[in-house]
Amino acid sequence: MKKAIYYHAGCPVCVAAEQQLLDTLDTQRVALQKIDLGQSPEARVQARQAGVESVPALCIDGAVFHINFGASLADLMGEGA
Amino acid sequence: MKKAIYYHAGCPVCVAAEQQLLDTLDTQRVALQKIDLGQSPEARVQARQAGVESVPALCIDGAVFHINFGASLADLMGEGA
Repeated sequence: MKKAIYYHAGCPVCVAAEQQLLDTLDTQRVALQKIDLGQSPEARVQARQAGVESVPALCIDGAVFHINFGASLADLMGEGA
Repeated sequence: MKKAIYYHAGCPVCVAAEQQLLDTLDTQRVALQKIDLGQSPEARVQARQAGVESVPALCIDGAVFHINFGASLADLMGEGA
């Protein structure tokens, strides 16, 4: 199984990507986990360490793919633009 | 079947996304077409009309998801930055 983590923050861009893009994934081969970065500071630190710079982002086996642009992680972490 | 079109230009960002992201799609439910925008001006015009602003981009049933950032369509069309 491939391991995929979808990082989001509940914003409209994130929701659109979640509904349409994630629905195309092959759930027989991909184990998908969803992490809301708005919910915990620990998750934001973990996301940054994984290379996530903005949400929504889909991390597949360690490779980060940033999708469109919803919010920067710096903004979510309260570090300003 | 959902219809997905992957717009790319052969750049390293595009190739990485193609190899890892597209490999997670459910080919039983998603009909995937790949279009190399480096190959034809007509394809670039079509991509722009579809809402593509940069490559790589994955268009799913009309909704465009730009992935990371490889090249702007304006650059590919010779319009400068």
